[in-house]
Amino acid sequence: MPKLWNETIESHRDAVRAAILDATASLVADRGLAPVTMSQIAQAAGIGRATLYKYFPDVEAILTAWHERQINSHLEYLSQVRNRTVGPGQQVESVLEAYAFLSHSGPGTADFARLHQGPHVGLAQQHLRGFLADLLRQGADAGRFRRDVAPDELAAFCLHALEAASALTSRDAVLRLVKVTMTALQPPPPPHSGSGGSGS
Amino acid sequence: MPKLWNETIESHRDAVRAAILDATASLVADRGLAPVTMSQIAQAAGIGRATLYKYFPDVEAILTAWHERQINSHLEYLSQVRNRTVGPGQQVESVLEAYAFLSHSGPGTADFARLHQGPHVGLAQQHLRGFLADLLRQGADAGRFRRDVAPDELAAFCLHALEAASALTSRDAVLRLVKVTMTALQPPPPPHSGSGGSGS
Repeated sequence: MPKLWNETIESHRDAVRAAILDATASLVADRGLAPVTMSQIAQAAGIGRATLYKYFPDVEAILTAWHERQINSHLEYLSQVRNRTVGPGQQVESVLEAYAFLSHSGPGTADFARLHQGPHVGLAQQHLRGFLADLLRQGADAGRFRRDVAPDELAAFCLHALEAASALTSRDAVLRLVKVTMTALQPPPPPHSGSGGSGS
Repeated sequence: MPKLWNETIESHRDAVRAAILDATASLVADRGLAPVTMSQIAQAAGIGRATLYKYFPDVEAILTAWHERQINSHLEYLSQVRNRTVGPGQQVESVLEAYAFLSHSGPGTADFARLHQGPHVGLAQQHLRGFLADLLRQGADAGRFRRDVAPDELAAFCLHALEAASALTSRDAVLRLVKVTMTALQPPPPPHSGSGGSGS
């Protein structure tokens, strides 16, 4: 087969795949997760069930692929946000704020993720966490963030904490959530500020 | 019908209901969420499909009921933890630690919850958040926690942040997560500690 033909097939496959993921996203948004079936997805994507099964073995696989696509697009956006900002402290704050607003407006993709992957974290999610961990490491090296907890653990903490944004009703509440999360990243204060064993 | 007969029916219904929820929990634990069907649940619970439909209209409703039961049992446990501890500061720390270990060992019930309920938060989840918000309010009144963010928002922040425990591999990592979360609750330091606009 000439190369052009292969490319046409390839781009057709990409288009079908994208249509399947879009259809699934809108079904999930409309009806929640559990009741989505392969037949419904095929119908919403405008393809036959047999075709759908050529692309994905089951609903789980589609949801995982959809989620990976979401996270990758978030990651791209967050990289842009980082590149617009100078200094690791400010970069972390801007990225956390952007992520909080993604969680706030999005269809709870992160929940989703963990649900479907359980202890096995998806590749895109790992990249997202690694991206944030790098910024936190630079900030810790610059004395801006705590060093008593590894950047990777802090990154996981931040991503979870900011998912609280999905249930918040105002922009101000999202900004407060970012502020509270940023507080947790500060270096611990010198040991005299009243947290001793006074039993309070 | 005599009262005794009603009570027998009632306790039989409770037993069937509990068996359905148990069966669902073990199916979900084994296979993840999306593929669970009413037939599988009926089979795992040892009842007919027709009987199952007398109890629950669909998988979604079962998952919601199961989740409510989980959260209620967590809430009961967390109340005991609180009652064993003195002073709002210590109480919050003990409760957060206990919750983190529940998330660490459990099958990610919280994810689950939000997934299935979306913006509508379940009653049990509301109670859990309210329970924690009360402790945080007492701690804020005692000067132990920050007052610039409402206790309810702080409670939501904590519950989300601690879900990071579900992916942690060690007990020490869970304890570090609790420490980081507690840091976020501290009153903001007086405004001189280097967080000014130095563009870091």
